[in-house]
Amino acid sequence: MVELEREGLKLKEDLKFYFMSPCDKYRARRQIPWKLALQVLKIVMVTTQLVLFGLSNQLVVSFKEENTMAFKHLFLKGYSGIDEDDYSLTVYNQKDFYNSIFFVIDQYHQIGNLSLGTVGYENDEKRKGLKICKQHYQKGSIHPSNDTFYIGPTVETECLHIQKDLLMTNHSRDLLQANPFFSLEFYRLIKVEISFRLKGIDLQTIRVRELPDCYVFHNKITFDNQAHSGKVKIFFDTDATIQDCKDWHISGSTQKNTHYILVFDGFVILTCLTSLILCTRSIVLAIRLQRRFVHFFLEQYNRHVCSADRLEFINGWYVMVIISDLMTIIGSVMKMEIKAKNLTSYDVCSLLLGSSTLLVWVGVIRYLGYFQKYNVLILTMQASLPKVLRFCCCAGMIYLGYTFCGWIVLGPYHEKFEDLNTVAECLFSLLNGDDMFATFAQIQQKSTFVWLFSRLYLYSFISLFIYMILSLFIALITDSYETIKVSF
Amino acid sequence: MVELEREGLKLKEDLKFYFMSPCDKYRARRQIPWKLALQVLKIVMVTTQLVLFGLSNQLVVSFKEENTMAFKHLFLKGYSGIDEDDYSLTVYNQKDFYNSIFFVIDQYHQIGNLSLGTVGYENDEKRKGLKICKQHYQKGSIHPSNDTFYIGPTVETECLHIQKDLLMTNHSRDLLQANPFFSLEFYRLIKVEISFRLKGIDLQTIRVRELPDCYVFHNKITFDNQAHSGKVKIFFDTDATIQDCKDWHISGSTQKNTHYILVFDGFVILTCLTSLILCTRSIVLAIRLQRRFVHFFLEQYNRHVCSADRLEFINGWYVMVIISDLMTIIGSVMKMEIKAKNLTSYDVCSLLLGSSTLLVWVGVIRYLGYFQKYNVLILTMQASLPKVLRFCCCAGMIYLGYTFCGWIVLGPYHEKFEDLNTVAECLFSLLNGDDMFATFAQIQQKSTFVWLFSRLYLYSFISLFIYMILSLFIALITDSYETIKVSF
Amino acid sequence: MVELEREGLKLKEDLKFYFMSPCDKYRARRQIPWKLALQVLKIVMVTTQLVLFGLSNQLVVSFKEENTMAFKHLFLKGYSGIDEDDYSLTVYNQKDFYNSIFFVIDQYHQIGNLSLGTVGYENDEKRKGLKICKQHYQKGSIHPSNDTFYIGPTVETECLHIQKDLLMTNHSRDLLQANPFFSLEFYRLIKVEISFRLKGIDLQTIRVRELPDCYVFHNKITFDNQAHSGKVKIFFDTDATIQDCKDWHISGSTQKNTHYILVFDGFVILTCLTSLILCTRSIVLAIRLQRRFVHFFLEQYNRHVCSADRLEFINGWYVMVIISDLMTIIGSVMKMEIKAKNLTSYDVCSLLLGSSTLLVWVGVIRYLGYFQKYNVLILTMQASLPKVLRFCCCAGMIYLGYTFCGWIVLGPYHEKFEDLNTVAECLFSLLNGDDMFATFAQIQQKSTFVWLFSRLYLYSFISLFIYMILSLFIALITDSYETIKVSF
Amino acid sequence: MVELEREGLKLKEDLKFYFMSPCDKYRARRQIPWKLALQVLKIVMVTTQLVLFGLSNQLVVSFKEENTMAFKHLFLKGYSGIDEDDYSLTVYNQKDFYNSIFFVIDQYHQIGNLSLGTVGYENDEKRKGLKICKQHYQKGSIHPSNDTFYIGPTVETECLHIQKDLLMTNHSRDLLQANPFFSLEFYRLIKVEISFRLKGIDLQTIRVRELPDCYVFHNKITFDNQAHSGKVKIFFDTDATIQDCKDWHISGSTQKNTHYILVFDGFVILTCLTSLILCTRSIVLAIRLQRRFVHFFLEQYNRHVCSADRLEFINGWYVMVIISDLMTIIGSVMKMEIKAKNLTSYDVCSLLLGSSTLLVWVGVIRYLGYFQKYNVLILTMQASLPKVLRFCCCAGMIYLGYTFCGWIVLGPYHEKFEDLNTVAECLFSLLNGDDMFATFAQIQQKSTFVWLFSRLYLYSFISLFIYMILSLFIALITDSYETIKVSF
Repeated sequence: MVELEREGLKLKEDLKFYFMSPCDKYRARRQIPWKLALQVLKIVMVTTQLVLFGLSNQLVVSFKEENTMAFKHLFLKGYSGIDEDDYSLTVYNQKDFYNSIFFVIDQYHQIGNLSLGTVGYENDEKRKGLKICKQHYQKGSIHPSNDTFYIGPTVETECLHIQKDLLMTNHSRDLLQANPFFSLEFYRLIKVEISFRLKGIDLQTIRVRELPDCYVFHNKITFDNQAHSGKVKIFFDTDATIQDCKDWHISGSTQKNTHYILVFDGFVILTCLTSLILCTRSIVLAIRLQRRFVHFFLEQYNRHVCSADRLEFINGWYVMVIISDLMTIIGSVMKMEIKAKNLTSYDVCSLLLGSSTLLVWVGVIRYLGYFQKYNVLILTMQASLPKVLRFCCCAGMIYLGYTFCGWIVLGPYHEKFEDLNTVAECLFSLLNGDDMFATFAQIQQKSTFVWLFSRLYLYSFISLFIYMILSLFIALITDSYETIKVSF
Repeated sequence: MVELEREGLKLKEDLKFYFMSPCDKYRARRQIPWKLALQVLKIVMVTTQLVLFGLSNQLVVSFKEENTMAFKHLFLKGYSGIDEDDYSLTVYNQKDFYNSIFFVIDQYHQIGNLSLGTVGYENDEKRKGLKICKQHYQKGSIHPSNDTFYIGPTVETECLHIQKDLLMTNHSRDLLQANPFFSLEFYRLIKVEISFRLKGIDLQTIRVRELPDCYVFHNKITFDNQAHSGKVKIFFDTDATIQDCKDWHISGSTQKNTHYILVFDGFVILTCLTSLILCTRSIVLAIRLQRRFVHFFLEQYNRHVCSADRLEFINGWYVMVIISDLMTIIGSVMKMEIKAKNLTSYDVCSLLLGSSTLLVWVGVIRYLGYFQKYNVLILTMQASLPKVLRFCCCAGMIYLGYTFCGWIVLGPYHEKFEDLNTVAECLFSLLNGDDMFATFAQIQQKSTFVWLFSRLYLYSFISLFIYMILSLFIALITDSYETIKVSF
Repeated sequence: MVELEREGLKLKEDLKFYFMSPCDKYRARRQIPWKLALQVLKIVMVTTQLVLFGLSNQLVVSFKEENTMAFKHLFLKGYSGIDEDDYSLTVYNQKDFYNSIFFVIDQYHQIGNLSLGTVGYENDEKRKGLKICKQHYQKGSIHPSNDTFYIGPTVETECLHIQKDLLMTNHSRDLLQANPFFSLEFYRLIKVEISFRLKGIDLQTIRVRELPDCYVFHNKITFDNQAHSGKVKIFFDTDATIQDCKDWHISGSTQKNTHYILVFDGFVILTCLTSLILCTRSIVLAIRLQRRFVHFFLEQYNRHVCSADRLEFINGWYVMVIISDLMTIIGSVMKMEIKAKNLTSYDVCSLLLGSSTLLVWVGVIRYLGYFQKYNVLILTMQASLPKVLRFCCCAGMIYLGYTFCGWIVLGPYHEKFEDLNTVAECLFSLLNGDDMFATFAQIQQKSTFVWLFSRLYLYSFISLFIYMILSLFIALITDSYETIKVSF
Repeated sequence: MVELEREGLKLKEDLKFYFMSPCDKYRARRQIPWKLALQVLKIVMVTTQLVLFGLSNQLVVSFKEENTMAFKHLFLKGYSGIDEDDYSLTVYNQKDFYNSIFFVIDQYHQIGNLSLGTVGYENDEKRKGLKICKQHYQKGSIHPSNDTFYIGPTVETECLHIQKDLLMTNHSRDLLQANPFFSLEFYRLIKVEISFRLKGIDLQTIRVRELPDCYVFHNKITFDNQAHSGKVKIFFDTDATIQDCKDWHISGSTQKNTHYILVFDGFVILTCLTSLILCTRSIVLAIRLQRRFVHFFLEQYNRHVCSADRLEFINGWYVMVIISDLMTIIGSVMKMEIKAKNLTSYDVCSLLLGSSTLLVWVGVIRYLGYFQKYNVLILTMQASLPKVLRFCCCAGMIYLGYTFCGWIVLGPYHEKFEDLNTVAECLFSLLNGDDMFATFAQIQQKSTFVWLFSRLYLYSFISLFIYMILSLFIALITDSYETIKVSF
């Protein structure tokens, strides 16, 4: 009995200590807040790493971007770079279609005298030159005037390989045009694809004391006639792969910059590993304490501890730190691999590092919560969150209904309602007061019926969401704030 | 007396059961919530149907759109597709006017060698070729220099039919230009209309395993000189009708896809019919119960039940479900007819299906209302709705006044105030904080008087609505929320 | 004493009656609410009149607009109508300058063969032809290379009158170019102005059964070199005056439409006059009652009535109605004069009619206020208005400070901060959440110092106004609402 | 003891007087509020000075701007001024590159016959003519086809000086093109810079009766090939310095305008100096009073006055006035120096004057606070400020996290996320409801992975900040308002 009481006292003390803030812990048991210091260090290191990665990433991205831009200007006839959507050009008659194709061939032939960059042909004999492929329905004849057609729906692909040397002669273009390959039957043509490879070297890294990389650009120009609607879209696709250059010589200083960064990455991994271990330990200890508490409660008062109280033991912040640490570690390893040219998945790496940094910064709020006055605000947010989510759920139903309805009815007449995803974004913007007049104005006035519906639809949606639902959000939060404030 | 009491008890129990939620009903009488299950099934089916219809609709719409775009590029001289408003081009001098007309004729003649699509001439002898009509005032002579004019206000129409074959000869254009029909007197010319038909086949449906459709495009190019202001607007109008192709052969697999969709549509109609019947039955039962209650109340307490209490019996949700079901059924039938090419009213069909889906999703809120915590929010919205509407009424008066005033005063100087409907949209956008600076900046600074008025007008409107009226909305909703919260 | 009491009782009753709503008055003394009926009639009539005026105004405005557009396309070399600001074109070198001038002369000469509209030369011999004027500093010589200049600041104007007939000959252009008038000394040239008149007839009114009007267009093209900065702006100004046509004949139906409208305008004036008289009478009666009341109060209780209580007697709504009536009457008279072609001040007329319509519609709120539930809202608005204005005053000071500061510091680097008025509009838009990113992005990055300041300036302004001041508005209104609600 | 009491009484009275408003002071001791009058005078003078400075600044700025624009049109081949970003043009192939360079040389040679402005060559023999410099890597050979390169990373600069006279001969261009300097090796070329000077005179100041200034324009055209990506950016940079003209003669009236402005500036300085002295005196007196109070408190009650109470003595408004006065004085002195052409730092001067004006206007609020009813609002703002700042701190952490995360992940795919600073601005705009749809739409759909992340990122950020955080702001302010209102 006495033992139980003693155990109870000890448990009480342990529990008290467990739910203390670092400052209080320091005061109570002179326990220096290592974990806190580690987290602060982590914020600094993770952010520095992110910024460094971002800056070096920017160089690579801008080199690729500018090369793509340059290729588009060199290979797409009539490309202006400003007026059109960035990824597409269109051609509406047969002459323009042929001209665009032969323009690519001509330009490829002269690339050395045209380009301002450091590009050259592929050296490999097999991969040198242009490859032109055309895709069409097997065979068929179409007579729209008689409403009759005979078609074989299987798709055939035919290719032509144009060697670079073949193009060197002067009357090569006449020869090419005479080639039966280029007498296209548009009614059954689905696609023409021209693909070729170019190589380049990114010299600008020399200025930041890094080694230049060698690039291979896989360019592909697609003339897309799938719709057979008289409008052929031209797409330009370039895919750049990075390799170590085979043979190089830079006179003067050697490049050591890379090493320092690798060492720094190592430190970041170490820091995160420590933080990961410490937090896991805390959670393990917490679960052990929870078990003790449950056991004691059962023995002493013969009562089960409800699951909500049990969850109190598991600190959500620790879980967040663990997730963030894991992401940083994986991301850093990937970053090192990218530096070593074993990997090229910049996207995944930046996503991991970015998300972990977001979590690390959000984690700072926890430390601010140790101050009384800041705590009111954090608690209000915590308290109102479930209500807000619950309410979002209700509003979401109406939102979904409007999304589907808008897509199906206004889709054919309004650019912003063309696919479900855009509709959702458009409505989201509208309810936050953006782009309203433009949305109203953009509807095509072909069918007055639909036009009237669109007015009803937009006015009702905006009024409902801005005047009713957003106001209710404010009411919810104000209410939570008042509740929390009283309890202090 | 005892009987009455017994009846009263039974009525009480029936009433209690009537106002129960499905969960409680299940607990009370083990009544499995068929209706609830049916509604959930309906949501899934209706949404699926909508998405399927939307996707197939998109193909048709995009084929029409792209053909229209292609025709505009082929037949409108100087059309760039980006710089201008989509539906209009303008011509300001006589040479351009004639050139634009002869351009259409030339292009039509060569369409086979120009177009990248699957278009061809109409086969029917009578409808082949171009038809050019000019509309002008009967006769007259105008001397602006002397401020004198003689005009016959009756409008005459003269037409010229140009056979395709006639255009085949080489010097056809010179012949045409020499035609007295083309010596236009601009001062009395009202309109020139060129109309012709082209046929096309939408082959891309083969990829989704559906049968290609044959299209007839009724194109009409209008040169509109109604205003006699020196600015002639050119409109391009195309109207596509879909028909079954007369004769076709597709080698390989047959097309069965359509059948599955028809069967699915049938199931949707069946589900909605069941739901419709169940809900009608519920309403009938409710009215019967209401009568019993009124009767009992009159007999027992000798009091009339007030109409508000009577209305309580009629569940608004059931009414909504019935409306939604009716719309789905009609919409589905239309959809099947469209598939069978008996109807082409895509708009009405999509409107019916879209609206019914909106209602079905809004209906989900009702089921969420069965949970206590969600109910607070729904009740708040219900409670504040009348107040909000009443207030909208007041605000609407001021809004209307501003609309009229803005239209008349700023109309001639500001694009957004050109017609009443646009003014209303512009003001609505402004009060939600959109496009403010653009609206301020767009006013033409011709008259300083009007310019000053426009500032006063815009500042006062925006301040009044954003600072006073929107804030009052928030006050209303907050108040309702507090009232509802207390009652729980 | 008894008399006084009797008088007191009578006064009490009169006061009670005076402050009654029309409905109560009807119930109390069976007084039919003529005034109310009259106001409702007035709303209908005034709105109808406004719409009619607006529609006819639109025709006139669009004719002028389109002619201006057509002239710009005909006379301004290189005018595209889309890319540039609507009112200005610029020229940067001497060749373009001369070309633009001679282009105007050439086009004017051929206007008959160019224009699609109904324009002709002025018949009057004196006013026929082009007038070219150049303005320059008296004399001077400028040597920027030596930093020296000699200039006479008095401005001289030299003009050349080109007769139309002179232009008819073939080698006229060579003759003109040889004219010493056209050897311009750009360093002292201030302006070149070309002005000419054209006449036109607006035939489209025939369709709405009104008589066509004859127009005189006073066109002026200005080449503005005031700044001597190497950039010459070209302005096109057209001023249209409307006249009755001298001699006309329209075969067929006569035009009676105008008479009906004149009669309708007369009715509107009559209605407003009645309303004006009734309201003036009410106010006179109110003042008389107030005097009785003051007198009685002084005699009976020997107390002065405070001025706030005195003001209660004067019904603000009546004042509004009187103002609105006066505006309508003046506006209607002007409208009739415009119809009779004695006046052309469309702007003033539309402003008067527009404002009066705004007031008439706002007046409807008063009648809504007779219902209990609507009254809460109106009273809240009334109660919060002084607080809101007082607060606007405080916020206005900060706003003014920001306006001045932004103008002086950011003016040279940011288009939106170029003049005080635009700054005010820009800040107003920002605080309502519009065009924020664009404003941030538009600043020129010439001086990092100013760039940093601009960030500080914008962030602080937006945060202060959106988070503090707009929230306080909501607090004010919510508070007023609660105060009012309790008192009911 | 009695003395202490007497001292206590006197102190009490002094304190009472110290914390009085000017009106009360006047009533109490008939002390005329000189300081108040001075401040009002200051507001008027400072604002007038600012407006005058702004207007004269505008002339200078517009002259520079328009000259820059004119130079761009004259020297940049293919510059349109509308389509491109204002500061950059791009060139994608070698022919265009050479053409652009020779275009500059040609145009420079003919500037006298081209320009419409008052520009001329530099007279100084040494500085006359064009200077073309090219920067390239020391030496090297690059073979992208073989993935090999040899490069010397040291940068060399080579220059060519083209005398104006040399260009005068007819076949000069052929000579130039033959020059080996112009056979560029693009793979190692970093930059080509063409620089030249032009002189101009700003004559338009004559109209405002000021003396014309002489300008030197240092123009520099840069062809930037740093990235070696095939895209060469062309930058035009002009730097204008203002000087007194050496020799000038203006016939007629002399220019006295400048003197008046200098006198006015003197008055402003005097006023601010007086205000500065008075406010410093007040603060000194306040500190003395505070010391007396602290001393008395210590002696009488033996208690220390806490630091918050001590701070009460220092009037924040006085500090603000002192800062504002200092800024005005420095700014005015600079303004006089600029007028005297000893300084050209317009930016610093306008920043000082602008900021001081902002502070002066904000200071008006203090005087409004003397009225009871205005005070409520000011106190609310004061009371809520710390809470708002504290909350901003919490929200700022999340904001920072989102900024970093968005930059790293979305940076390569979204224009608005390209650098940290733009990300911050974009997010700030989003949370205030601006540019939402555009931000959603602008993401490039290259990687679906990143695209999905961007949706999650944007939806979560906007929802969190608009629905939770902005609502909490309103709750905070409403709460403060209620607290303050009760205490009155």
